[in-house]
Amino acid sequence: MDKLQIAQINKYNVFRCLVREGPINRAAIAKLTDLSIPTVMSIVDDLFEKEVVRSIGKGESSGGKPPEMLEIVPERFCYIGVDIGRTTIRVVANNIISQQIACLQEPTGDPFPEKIFAERLCKLVLQIVKQLQAKKECVLGVGVAMPGLIENETGNVIFSPDFGWDNIPLRAWLQGRLPYPIIVENANRALALNESYIPGEEDHTHTTFSVNLGYGIGAGLVIGEDLYTGSSGTSGEIGHITVAKEGPVCKCGNIGCLEAVASGAAIAIEAQRIIREGIPSKIAEFCGGDPDKIDAKLVFRAADTGDETALEIINIAAEYIGIGLSMAINVLDPDRVVLCGGLMKNGPLFFNMIKTSLKKHQMRQVGRRLTISTETKGEYSTANGACRVLANTLWWRRALPI
Amino acid sequence: MDKLQIAQINKYNVFRCLVREGPINRAAIAKLTDLSIPTVMSIVDDLFEKEVVRSIGKGESSGGKPPEMLEIVPERFCYIGVDIGRTTIRVVANNIISQQIACLQEPTGDPFPEKIFAERLCKLVLQIVKQLQAKKECVLGVGVAMPGLIENETGNVIFSPDFGWDNIPLRAWLQGRLPYPIIVENANRALALNESYIPGEEDHTHTTFSVNLGYGIGAGLVIGEDLYTGSSGTSGEIGHITVAKEGPVCKCGNIGCLEAVASGAAIAIEAQRIIREGIPSKIAEFCGGDPDKIDAKLVFRAADTGDETALEIINIAAEYIGIGLSMAINVLDPDRVVLCGGLMKNGPLFFNMIKTSLKKHQMRQVGRRLTISTETKGEYSTANGACRVLANTLWWRRALPI
Repeated sequence: MDKLQIAQINKYNVFRCLVREGPINRAAIAKLTDLSIPTVMSIVDDLFEKEVVRSIGKGESSGGKPPEMLEIVPERFCYIGVDIGRTTIRVVANNIISQQIACLQEPTGDPFPEKIFAERLCKLVLQIVKQLQAKKECVLGVGVAMPGLIENETGNVIFSPDFGWDNIPLRAWLQGRLPYPIIVENANRALALNESYIPGEEDHTHTTFSVNLGYGIGAGLVIGEDLYTGSSGTSGEIGHITVAKEGPVCKCGNIGCLEAVASGAAIAIEAQRIIREGIPSKIAEFCGGDPDKIDAKLVFRAADTGDETALEIINIAAEYIGIGLSMAINVLDPDRVVLCGGLMKNGPLFFNMIKTSLKKHQMRQVGRRLTISTETKGEYSTANGACRVLANTLWWRRALPI
Repeated sequence: MDKLQIAQINKYNVFRCLVREGPINRAAIAKLTDLSIPTVMSIVDDLFEKEVVRSIGKGESSGGKPPEMLEIVPERFCYIGVDIGRTTIRVVANNIISQQIACLQEPTGDPFPEKIFAERLCKLVLQIVKQLQAKKECVLGVGVAMPGLIENETGNVIFSPDFGWDNIPLRAWLQGRLPYPIIVENANRALALNESYIPGEEDHTHTTFSVNLGYGIGAGLVIGEDLYTGSSGTSGEIGHITVAKEGPVCKCGNIGCLEAVASGAAIAIEAQRIIREGIPSKIAEFCGGDPDKIDAKLVFRAADTGDETALEIINIAAEYIGIGLSMAINVLDPDRVVLCGGLMKNGPLFFNMIKTSLKKHQMRQVGRRLTISTETKGEYSTANGACRVLANTLWWRRALPI
């Protein structure tokens, strides 16, 4: 490494230390970053000059004179995150220490023509920037989370079944209308990155496998602090593994995919089929006899009353989800599995059914350090994840204005 | 980073550059490692003193005086690799530039009592060291590849179904009798690491998923140059994903595992069952009417003659393998899938059946950069992989005597 590279790495490490550990004094930074105190002093001076760091007064003395405590100026920079969901678009602004400082949402509506839709996204981004009264140079960039297959290098949406989009140059379109760096990432992966984050555990080498169980099913793998993307940007498609060889046709065109037998859509379709056959059930009562009104939520509501038909439908879905998860656990041996998405918002019953299936299908003694939990980070988790994807990318590219 | 850390990183980088690119001159090393020529000169001097590097005379001039060409002294250090297979134990010695310089093998025989078996392994290691006439300080360590669940930190064999071993402190036993660092790794992962290696592609960030299709089924994931191990050292257990919910019981205790329907053992069992039912087939002819003599190899031989029963048996196995692989491809999106192991040594027919199944089950547009190939690195590939596991570990621990 040459001097310039080392100086840059050292500066980034001091910056990260301030972000994570601040308020903190210079000696403590030196200790945590393995740098000499003069080096830390000179980097901190530079960060002062750029108004990235500020003093918050004296800390406690450990014998000598009390040290000056430093922290990142949180409002100095912000990240914008956009979550393009099939029903709702959510936009957040996070400050440099990952606190959400603004948010907005609106119904997604018609995603065609795609270019007009992209223009709407740009307007929402500009709206949140305006709301923040942030200067252009304070906005570090925009992370966009989009369902579907994304080509990471170009930010093209190769294929989004949820949106019916094919080969849409989303990043290029946004980049043409916004004066900030733009990153496009798969929504399940952005969510995974946010859900993998545990404060105080930043430097871990842990692996988190996060599964989004909703209308569709997708996943993301996070190794340490980084998303695993795969070779062509299409990793995490656990919804399309074959779990029922002779099962129903999936909207991807294959047969017996996990998504075709265990997603919110699959649960609704199965319930509609059964009710059309005239089988008596609370489901029929709740939908007022109109099978078209049945969605997964309604089936869960019926199951909560103890309705056997509903219980059987969700139990079959849970068993298949357990098969899919056990596959990921056998192959990846992650530290954590986080179950996210709409299906998990129906109380502990479904979660327990999944755990029962997992116990049946997971190889014994595999995944001995595994903990399984459900998502806890709320409706803006994917948008916050988009901010994290952006932050990581700028970090690795050494493209922060520090 | 402090000066000492930087100096060590620089030294390791020069060393790696010499290993990979040698013979090479100092200016070229400086260019490739981003170091100044004086820094490279001083590191090279140090390596000369330790007899790690040598001059092989003058290279071609690019204008000025012809530069001195340097290379690693290949015989200066060696790695020992041990492959504990269920039928054969193989031991290799590789020099520092990963060339195999010695090998030996013997039948595995009875693996009990485990401690006596471990003593046999030590004798084989000492035998190959003697064969090499290597001094103790030239042997950098011993990498051991063992089928089963391995705890990486301790080198304990948690569970090995192939060997019937439970909680065996293999590394501790070997370490007590051998004066070298010992690393124990799962055999499928060691094989994966060796099979992922493509000369000239060392610095890639590619991902390789290597599957060992033999008597059992296991896999390893290599990201860049490193094995993905997972949180508890049990990753890669693709043999125990559920692919046939209502299928046969697997020796792991679960139902319908890939290994229970598609391994060499499963193919043999299925053929034995059919022949016992009296169905006419070349298989019955080849086994001389004794179903106990049927192994997977025999079924493949019958399939090669066009025997329909045999063809159907292996086609069912291939379909399940395709389902398992498509799962891994959907989730991991690797650059390469390498199919290894005994089942792949039966000609292109089986490989083509697997590819047909994959086409049916893999999600469209996923894995767009994927290439699928079969193993090419021969019977010592796992033992060579054990050397690579060791080399990587010593590298990351900065524990090479340079």
